[in-house]
Amino acid sequence: MNLLGTREPDVYGNLTLDEIIHTLKKTSGDVEISHFQSNVEGELIDELQQADSSVDGIVLNAGGYTHTSVAIRDAIAGISIPVIEVHLSNIASREEFRHRSLIAGVCLGTIAGFGSNSYALAINALQTYLKEGR
Amino acid sequence: MNLLGTREPDVYGNLTLDEIIHTLKKTSGDVEISHFQSNVEGELIDELQQADSSVDGIVLNAGGYTHTSVAIRDAIAGISIPVIEVHLSNIASREEFRHRSLIAGVCLGTIAGFGSNSYALAINALQTYLKEGR
Amino acid sequence: MNLLGTREPDVYGNLTLDEIIHTLKKTSGDVEISHFQSNVEGELIDELQQADSSVDGIVLNAGGYTHTSVAIRDAIAGISIPVIEVHLSNIASREEFRHRSLIAGVCLGTIAGFGSNSYALAINALQTYLKEGR
Amino acid sequence: MNLLGTREPDVYGNLTLDEIIHTLKKTSGDVEISHFQSNVEGELIDELQQADSSVDGIVLNAGGYTHTSVAIRDAIAGISIPVIEVHLSNIASREEFRHRSLIAGVCLGTIAGFGSNSYALAINALQTYLKEGR
Amino acid sequence: MNLLGTREPDVYGNLTLDEIIHTLKKTSGDVEISHFQSNVEGELIDELQQADSSVDGIVLNAGGYTHTSVAIRDAIAGISIPVIEVHLSNIASREEFRHRSLIAGVCLGTIAGFGSNSYALAINALQTYLKEGR
Amino acid sequence: MNLLGTREPDVYGNLTLDEIIHTLKKTSGDVEISHFQSNVEGELIDELQQADSSVDGIVLNAGGYTHTSVAIRDAIAGISIPVIEVHLSNIASREEFRHRSLIAGVCLGTIAGFGSNSYALAINALQTYLKEGR
Amino acid sequence: MNLLGTREPDVYGNLTLDEIIHTLKKTSGDVEISHFQSNVEGELIDELQQADSSVDGIVLNAGGYTHTSVAIRDAIAGISIPVIEVHLSNIASREEFRHRSLIAGVCLGTIAGFGSNSYALAINALQTYLKEGR
Amino acid sequence: MNLLGTREPDVYGNLTLDEIIHTLKKTSGDVEISHFQSNVEGELIDELQQADSSVDGIVLNAGGYTHTSVAIRDAIAGISIPVIEVHLSNIASREEFRHRSLIAGVCLGTIAGFGSNSYALAINALQTYLKEGR
Amino acid sequence: MNLLGTREPDVYGNLTLDEIIHTLKKTSGDVEISHFQSNVEGELIDELQQADSSVDGIVLNAGGYTHTSVAIRDAIAGISIPVIEVHLSNIASREEFRHRSLIAGVCLGTIAGFGSNSYALAINALQTYLKEGR
Amino acid sequence: MNLLGTREPDVYGNLTLDEIIHTLKKTSGDVEISHFQSNVEGELIDELQQADSSVDGIVLNAGGYTHTSVAIRDAIAGISIPVIEVHLSNIASREEFRHRSLIAGVCLGTIAGFGSNSYALAINALQTYLKEGR
Amino acid sequence: MNLLGTREPDVYGNLTLDEIIHTLKKTSGDVEISHFQSNVEGELIDELQQADSSVDGIVLNAGGYTHTSVAIRDAIAGISIPVIEVHLSNIASREEFRHRSLIAGVCLGTIAGFGSNSYALAINALQTYLKEGR
Amino acid sequence: MNLLGTREPDVYGNLTLDEIIHTLKKTSGDVEISHFQSNVEGELIDELQQADSSVDGIVLNAGGYTHTSVAIRDAIAGISIPVIEVHLSNIASREEFRHRSLIAGVCLGTIAGFGSNSYALAINALQTYLKEGR
Repeated sequence: MNLLGTREPDVYGNLTLDEIIHTLKKTSGDVEISHFQSNVEGELIDELQQADSSVDGIVLNAGGYTHTSVAIRDAIAGISIPVIEVHLSNIASREEFRHRSLIAGVCLGTIAGFGSNSYALAINALQTYLKEGR
Repeated sequence: MNLLGTREPDVYGNLTLDEIIHTLKKTSGDVEISHFQSNVEGELIDELQQADSSVDGIVLNAGGYTHTSVAIRDAIAGISIPVIEVHLSNIASREEFRHRSLIAGVCLGTIAGFGSNSYALAINALQTYLKEGR
Repeated sequence: MNLLGTREPDVYGNLTLDEIIHTLKKTSGDVEISHFQSNVEGELIDELQQADSSVDGIVLNAGGYTHTSVAIRDAIAGISIPVIEVHLSNIASREEFRHRSLIAGVCLGTIAGFGSNSYALAINALQTYLKEGR
Repeated sequence: MNLLGTREPDVYGNLTLDEIIHTLKKTSGDVEISHFQSNVEGELIDELQQADSSVDGIVLNAGGYTHTSVAIRDAIAGISIPVIEVHLSNIASREEFRHRSLIAGVCLGTIAGFGSNSYALAINALQTYLKEGR
Repeated sequence: MNLLGTREPDVYGNLTLDEIIHTLKKTSGDVEISHFQSNVEGELIDELQQADSSVDGIVLNAGGYTHTSVAIRDAIAGISIPVIEVHLSNIASREEFRHRSLIAGVCLGTIAGFGSNSYALAINALQTYLKEGR
Repeated sequence: MNLLGTREPDVYGNLTLDEIIHTLKKTSGDVEISHFQSNVEGELIDELQQADSSVDGIVLNAGGYTHTSVAIRDAIAGISIPVIEVHLSNIASREEFRHRSLIAGVCLGTIAGFGSNSYALAINALQTYLKEGR
Repeated sequence: MNLLGTREPDVYGNLTLDEIIHTLKKTSGDVEISHFQSNVEGELIDELQQADSSVDGIVLNAGGYTHTSVAIRDAIAGISIPVIEVHLSNIASREEFRHRSLIAGVCLGTIAGFGSNSYALAINALQTYLKEGR
Repeated sequence: MNLLGTREPDVYGNLTLDEIIHTLKKTSGDVEISHFQSNVEGELIDELQQADSSVDGIVLNAGGYTHTSVAIRDAIAGISIPVIEVHLSNIASREEFRHRSLIAGVCLGTIAGFGSNSYALAINALQTYLKEGR
Repeated sequence: MNLLGTREPDVYGNLTLDEIIHTLKKTSGDVEISHFQSNVEGELIDELQQADSSVDGIVLNAGGYTHTSVAIRDAIAGISIPVIEVHLSNIASREEFRHRSLIAGVCLGTIAGFGSNSYALAINALQTYLKEGR
Repeated sequence: MNLLGTREPDVYGNLTLDEIIHTLKKTSGDVEISHFQSNVEGELIDELQQADSSVDGIVLNAGGYTHTSVAIRDAIAGISIPVIEVHLSNIASREEFRHRSLIAGVCLGTIAGFGSNSYALAINALQTYLKEGR
Repeated sequence: MNLLGTREPDVYGNLTLDEIIHTLKKTSGDVEISHFQSNVEGELIDELQQADSSVDGIVLNAGGYTHTSVAIRDAIAGISIPVIEVHLSNIASREEFRHRSLIAGVCLGTIAGFGSNSYALAINALQTYLKEGR
Repeated sequence: MNLLGTREPDVYGNLTLDEIIHTLKKTSGDVEISHFQSNVEGELIDELQQADSSVDGIVLNAGGYTHTSVAIRDAIAGISIPVIEVHLSNIASREEFRHRSLIAGVCLGTIAGFGSNSYALAINALQTYLKEGR
């Protein structure tokens, strides 16, 4: 499994990203988790394309690119493993231009608003989907 | 905890709603789960207002009212317990008029696209939120 | 067959609804016609879902809900018998917000503008469709 | 006279609805005031249609339905007694989707923003209108 | 009566237009039916203007011009006999730009979605209207 | 108290403005009422700014400027005394471009549709607000 | 000079088109006036293209095509003689979709709202323009 | 007759405004022409309201206010003498925001694009209208 | 092969249309090329429908109809041979209303911006497509 | 140089306007600075037109008129000296309707968000422009 | 010549990109072709700016950036060699948000919908343009 | 202080960027100025995040990303030092899609339209802000 996202240093509350990844790995049992962070839209796309043949699923927090990137949408649509869209905050209660997600339509599903717990829920959802097909 | 929603008989795949509730209760451990279904917008509002003083949180699948009901939005905003928006399908990959949720902005968060597993994830999220505040 | 609609007492000209139903039954030969009226959106949805297993087709005048109800649209899309949208007045010559019908796209077809005769035409269309598949 | 509205328990400040009705009845002199509350859109419509033949005028606080209900608009347009639109809060200073009232155009007039005093002003306006035709 | 429309050779299912006209004439009893087809917007307008003094009513399938022609709308508005808008398919379930009809507002009514039976229903509606004024 | 507005000579029915002011003063008991009329947007703004330190509240009928003037909105927002928006006619039942009020959001509340009685209701509302804070 | 337009038989009040042309020719002194009418958009375009080399200017009443025809706009833009847009009625006081003229931007100027006198004013304007360059 | 407009010193080509008025008076025979210019929206409104009882018609060049002033529109709608909208330039070939005129819908008609000759045409149109009612 | 288009006499630079056709025929080797020009929308549709059974593919320059004709779109969608949309100019660098092509979505592909060479490229593309299926 | 603006008494923080002007004059060396304030749109236009022949450049804070005044835009476009648009606050972080400036497009440039220092920066910019042409 | 584009591995049908480049080089005779691929928007911009001084023209497939990148548009507008926009698929028959190309307006022309043959056509077009100026 | 921007080689007039930086450093006295240029959106974001802890303020020319980048907006909002938006040209007088800046709302202020002098003004503004808090 691959956790993909932009670098947003200060939004994880009093947990560092490393602590989050650490916790996720511990609580997710036997799932193998890699992660990749970049502020460069194209590097996220590269990673999506490469992950297609090396992992079983992707948890993606596309940050601000969520609302503007047709290119990331195309990359998701072009790979065959499931991608879950994750947001730490509830984007629906923020600015108008954040209400539209360009990538949601090509993801398996969306989980938003639960802080760092959004990641744990997404990994949970991905595991169920890979095992039970829903 | 209260599972609230409209009656949509045929969308649960090969599981009946009773089986889903049954499974949820079994896997959710010591959480007490009640549920309420109605096609009447105002009865969902009544239930939201009454649940405020009797349960700890609500998992709400507002069906078609998601996209049109300012009244349900107002009811959610008017109560103090957390409400999680749930959708079985990925509404972002369906018709244009389903992309805007009028209620998302006043819910704690949103989980969409994981079939009946969306309910389990929401209950999971609610438990974490009630315990850890995120 | 089921005639479904909201209660709009004064729009039938000098005919009462009972007289219209009476006339429809007389002129429609051997078709069995039941009817249901409610101002409550959710009760119309209940009726649509129940009719699915008890009648062969539905003639629906959704009144003001025509333009605002995603929930009724979903109910129509979720049943397998044909539904025909009917309007007494020509909604295209009225206010701008009446020009868009949210339910037309999931109905078999639409008949609008012929006063109470719209119902007779719809029953006629339904009979032909059930017999000849068009 | 009929006070019609949705149930919004917590928005009346430190006055309960019963106290408000009580005060209104006391200060409105010889006007007879009945009231009806429901969260169900269709029940508000039923009440509007029935009130047409039993009271002289209606003071209506349609809550969230103000912005979404063509059906309530049609019910108001279909009755012959005057209806006054009332809002406790100043809806123009709230969210964008609250700035459009679907029912204002078929009411006699609108009074918004004066808390529970909005009701007293509306009853005052209705009395003047019934006596002086303006 | 005059059947007016564009030439759309392949959309009548397994019936040729001549067979449809033939059937219509047979089943419509003593009504006299003429028909005119053209792909030229202006020739449809010419025919509408000439028919005004020679027939009792018009059944019009304006094809793609339905959505773009202010000129046909003006021609319909400028004649005194009733015009019924007809569509073989349910235009509300097709592309967005087909949802708006520029001519519906100046027609007596609309019948859409019943294949070649739409014509028979329209002739039926026209006969009733000419006899009973509704 | 200050009545502020544009000069619209013919819209007061069979009452002259002087008669209205006269009646208002008589029926408003011990309230002191001044008034100011101008067709010049900037003079209305001047008056708003000057009234801030000389009166307790303002009743404002901004006429056509209601829908176009950000400058009047800014002036209202910049003063500390309450301003009530008043319209003689029901602007919601007139042209589309009159449905949006640029100033309503910064006023205490709005009263519209009751002819010259709108002024009396506004003075009533202002008195209550100044005495009871609602 | 060439008077170009669609055939709109009944809109000239109690004057026939021939009488109007007759009057125009009489009052326009030594100007030579030809005219052409067609309901076919493409024939109006043909005439515009041919008139370019045979007359000094064109007075064009494009009827309903005014609001929908990019093709007529292109034809006007492609010829070198001045074209004046004329309307008998005041299109700005009619339906919303008539407020936008696609051809106005490539004409010399517009004259609208003066009944058949619009033609006389346009010929007057064209003569002045050809003589004085304004 | 009254020529009303904003002060736009440099747009009259090589003619001064005084020369234009002078020429208009000379060529308009026995018509009495007064004129008024102001950059203040409210003073144009004052003049419109006063002219109602002193002249037979108004030729109005509202400059930039054409596109933004509901107040001027209301003033025109509130007087009983005919008003003709005039523009020196062809506003349809300029910026997008100049294509909509807020006042055109309440004027008798519009003349635009003929430089200073627009005034002469408008006076001509007004004379014909006052004499012949069209 | 069939070259279809409107008559736009002056846009071919210093080449006449005949010279272009002549050159195309010479350089296209053994392809048989017919051509048809009309300013009448309906005649272009007639030609499209007739060409369906007589040629292998169509190169279409729909001129101004590109942006407004649902009818031409329907004609293209209704035939089975490939149609290539061609424009001499780069429509994306012209007016806003030229940026939307109603017909592009039902054509095989689009070639725009290369002057008369656009035709040669389109014939080249059509040949490749007919031979290699791409 | 001319400082032009509306009267907005309370927005300068703890500095009075006179102090600001005083400081500007002191720090701007040998530049001569006059200033003019009015709430009347037309008087700002008058001042712009008169300043054209008497000063070298204008610093304009158009307040609320920034977003609504085509007339001020036209006045700026009609004069030949440079005009710099100034705002004390950062209008991009305020209400939606303040994000569009109608005058920015015809000014030399814009400076917004730096409190009273915006004026000093604008004078600095104007001096550089007049000396170095950029 | 330079072929520029994003990495979209699976959309070339059964040809690898290397085979396509290989074929292009073979069939394009004496043209020298280099190519560059990146998913990073800024690297495509770097390449565009560097190519300006080293090649004669560019064939650009901007993938998803076509619809969102003002920055690529600016880079194209800022260089002096011709750029041709290429798409493998017919973007006009895909999602709504793909119908607008931000870069088309600053390219020489567009070729879309012909699979890998789009590249060959673009090179052909570029050669003709460089030789014949069209 | 940090000057951040995209590489736009040819827009600085007859000054090279090095000369501009050189001049800025000379005239800005004792301010230390570093600069960073990249066409890669994500590298600008990286730089913004790193600058937060190493400089006192940022002058940012985001080029084309100004209008499309939610990600850069988020980066600015996420750091605590002041950022000033700078544009060499007056973006309000260019294409429509350049009128909206996604980043302006989270910057301290904006300076646009003064060529390379925009940088000097921004550094001046930043110094004042850091010293005087406005």
